[in-house]
Amino acid sequence: MYLAAAMLVPAAVDLYYGHEDWKAFAFSALFLGGLAMAIALSTQGRPPPASTRFGFFLVNLLWVTLAIAGAVPFMASSIGLSPTDAFFESVSGITTTGSTVISNLDGAPPGVLLWRSLLCFMGGLGVIALGLFLLPFLNIGGISYFKIESSDIEDRPFARFQTFTVSLITIYGSLVLLCAVAYAVAGMEPFHAVNHAMSTVATGGFSTHDTSFMRYADNPAILWVGIVFMSIGSLPFSIMMLFAVRGRVDALRDPQIRVFAGYSIVFALAVAVYLRVRLDMPFFDAVTHSAFNFMSIISTAGFASDDYTKWGPFAVACIFVATFLGGCSGSTTGGIKAYRFLILFELLANGLRRLIYPNTVLPVRYGDRSVPDEMQQAVILFIASFLVLWAITTILLGATGLDFITATTGALTSLTNVGPGLGNTIGPIGNFSSLPDTAKWVCSFAMLLGRLEILAVLVIFTPTFWGR
Amino acid sequence: MYLAAAMLVPAAVDLYYGHEDWKAFAFSALFLGGLAMAIALSTQGRPPPASTRFGFFLVNLLWVTLAIAGAVPFMASSIGLSPTDAFFESVSGITTTGSTVISNLDGAPPGVLLWRSLLCFMGGLGVIALGLFLLPFLNIGGISYFKIESSDIEDRPFARFQTFTVSLITIYGSLVLLCAVAYAVAGMEPFHAVNHAMSTVATGGFSTHDTSFMRYADNPAILWVGIVFMSIGSLPFSIMMLFAVRGRVDALRDPQIRVFAGYSIVFALAVAVYLRVRLDMPFFDAVTHSAFNFMSIISTAGFASDDYTKWGPFAVACIFVATFLGGCSGSTTGGIKAYRFLILFELLANGLRRLIYPNTVLPVRYGDRSVPDEMQQAVILFIASFLVLWAITTILLGATGLDFITATTGALTSLTNVGPGLGNTIGPIGNFSSLPDTAKWVCSFAMLLGRLEILAVLVIFTPTFWGR
Repeated sequence: MYLAAAMLVPAAVDLYYGHEDWKAFAFSALFLGGLAMAIALSTQGRPPPASTRFGFFLVNLLWVTLAIAGAVPFMASSIGLSPTDAFFESVSGITTTGSTVISNLDGAPPGVLLWRSLLCFMGGLGVIALGLFLLPFLNIGGISYFKIESSDIEDRPFARFQTFTVSLITIYGSLVLLCAVAYAVAGMEPFHAVNHAMSTVATGGFSTHDTSFMRYADNPAILWVGIVFMSIGSLPFSIMMLFAVRGRVDALRDPQIRVFAGYSIVFALAVAVYLRVRLDMPFFDAVTHSAFNFMSIISTAGFASDDYTKWGPFAVACIFVATFLGGCSGSTTGGIKAYRFLILFELLANGLRRLIYPNTVLPVRYGDRSVPDEMQQAVILFIASFLVLWAITTILLGATGLDFITATTGALTSLTNVGPGLGNTIGPIGNFSSLPDTAKWVCSFAMLLGRLEILAVLVIFTPTFWGR
Repeated sequence: MYLAAAMLVPAAVDLYYGHEDWKAFAFSALFLGGLAMAIALSTQGRPPPASTRFGFFLVNLLWVTLAIAGAVPFMASSIGLSPTDAFFESVSGITTTGSTVISNLDGAPPGVLLWRSLLCFMGGLGVIALGLFLLPFLNIGGISYFKIESSDIEDRPFARFQTFTVSLITIYGSLVLLCAVAYAVAGMEPFHAVNHAMSTVATGGFSTHDTSFMRYADNPAILWVGIVFMSIGSLPFSIMMLFAVRGRVDALRDPQIRVFAGYSIVFALAVAVYLRVRLDMPFFDAVTHSAFNFMSIISTAGFASDDYTKWGPFAVACIFVATFLGGCSGSTTGGIKAYRFLILFELLANGLRRLIYPNTVLPVRYGDRSVPDEMQQAVILFIASFLVLWAITTILLGATGLDFITATTGALTSLTNVGPGLGNTIGPIGNFSSLPDTAKWVCSFAMLLGRLEILAVLVIFTPTFWGR
């Protein structure tokens, strides 16, 4: 129902711009709203008893339902996407991935463009809510992997649902507004500024131009606005709330923020120097473009201000590795994420120390506290399943006929919710439209897996889940 | 000194074939033998007290020394390799990787060819000895990561050094002899049969032809001899000894053998069907070539009976994923290895079960026993450090100017000691000769890291190792 209501926004915009598509959005809204209402009325009564199992089922069902419902306007509108394309585009939006199958974005009706941005916006909001509130609630009975996995390491500051929802929407909405104003001031047209603001803060990556931010390549102010808001979108939301609502600056001293900032700066600077030396780019331009594209990849937004696949092998290798990284836990970013790397390095350092002194027992530390065993295992399980799924997805994409680079990086970029891959097909100047339908379904599933932190989806496919 | 003695074999062969190079080998043998003797005499006396630290240092020093000494004849011989190339070739041999920088193998003098095969042979012997005897001995004071990591999960059947050495060399040598005879019977010329036998059983991958086993593409008998002996070379050596010396067939029921056989058969069959359907290859040929090349990649030998990069995207994606796998622990194979995957999947299955029933404690099982925590952690540490090193090596190779496919697969194939990568440069029809010198050094280091199971090298670079 919320989604149906949201469709009235593009309907209004298309009506304002005098585009026929307002009908498509209005009808989709009525149809889906009516359907949702009918289901709600016919299933009235006491909700089923809350259980972990039911919770996982609900989370998966919710994301799939959102994806299907979000696809309806794409089929109904004048661009008339096929069911496969519409589902792909919708999944890409609500998982804040930002891969697109629409080839002529610059000529697309405003309603469709806005709908894409709204899907990113709502997907981002949804994933923060999921990570901060819903998933921990699912595992109220004990410390479980997922709770640790998706929730913040910091104490959740908002125990009550209402306070939480209000602050979340306020802060998230203000960030988008601020970002839109900043883009507009820097020189972007208002309509594009609003759209890009939504997909920037949600680290989604949908653009209103086929060329993404290459259109603004000569406007460093716009690029720096993007860099700043993508960075903010990569921070843990609970910490941003602590900071914004209670003015606690100390909250920003979270170790994962330091790790995230660390690798972002190292990659951006190293490649900036490389661009200066090898491609003879002026240093300020080199820093701007390097910072924009690395922040875009690491925050898993997936905009591009330049065809970085032409930056030479070193830059391309760095972009590839950066695609794994991600931002902080409790943000809209995907990928492996900074806190997992932190814990992984602690585990590795301890392991090496134990080779020399086998009998020492050393705690794994996260900042000034020790990480419980369950969390260490959760980190490892995530990374292990991530890699296995990457391998499987690569083979499946290869089976649909995609070349090696497209298959490996397409699988990776879908699982990490980044957006673009490497190569000519799905690289920064390409898009996913030419992929075979099967490949689009594989990528859609991979995006959903990545968005729900993999384990929450995998659990649905275990015999334990369906047993007894 | 052993290596210097071994150099007399190619010296004798070159003398027999009337090739001038016999002098190069004889002089190298004299020079290195003399040097070794001098060092041995000048450092006579009580050995330093055995310690874990000293042990790790020794293992690293041993492999580097072997690599340097093995490089001398390559520089001295008529093919006159540069120090970088000679070191690369030597490292590739003793780590049983099988990547080569020599472009005209078919025209190379017999001594050089034999020396390459002997390096594989000795490297394979060394790595089995290391894994079965030396490394566990290093950690006699307690259960440490590395002990678990490299030694067999089965009880080591030969506690006494001499019995062990004799059986090891006998079984290993008999396998090579058997393999050589089989190759010769199948139609290979005796000289090539001997060479290929050494690098087959050691899962090394050095060939005496530029085209590797493509030369024998029309002789299925030769290819099946290769498949059989590469499979045998991938089995845990301690279990082979139990089987050979004590006739214990039940030893073969090791779970890791089942996993290894499982993934080998699945990949080989899937791609055979694909070759039959897509490339319209006769089914027997398809099975033969698929089985040969997948066994070659999975056993980390690295021969090629066909240019599989032309087999289409599905096959290439499978080859890429297979490059990670490896054989069994306690064999000459590299890569992640079957038992680690087994433990990883157990961990994953347990983790998912715990999402539903958070309070159940489930043991991680290997066959019918439970895997201690230390071993679980060791598996994870290996995989984590493997991936981090893959990322770093890829970036370093990119920095030397290698394209994306060459950098990613070159880093991977070096760390897993497989041999060929993908793409035209280092793929099955290419070799490593055109790489820049820096890239060759990076690959050499990666091969050593992979061969010593990564952690044994990394430990040398920790402050703990050098502290106090």
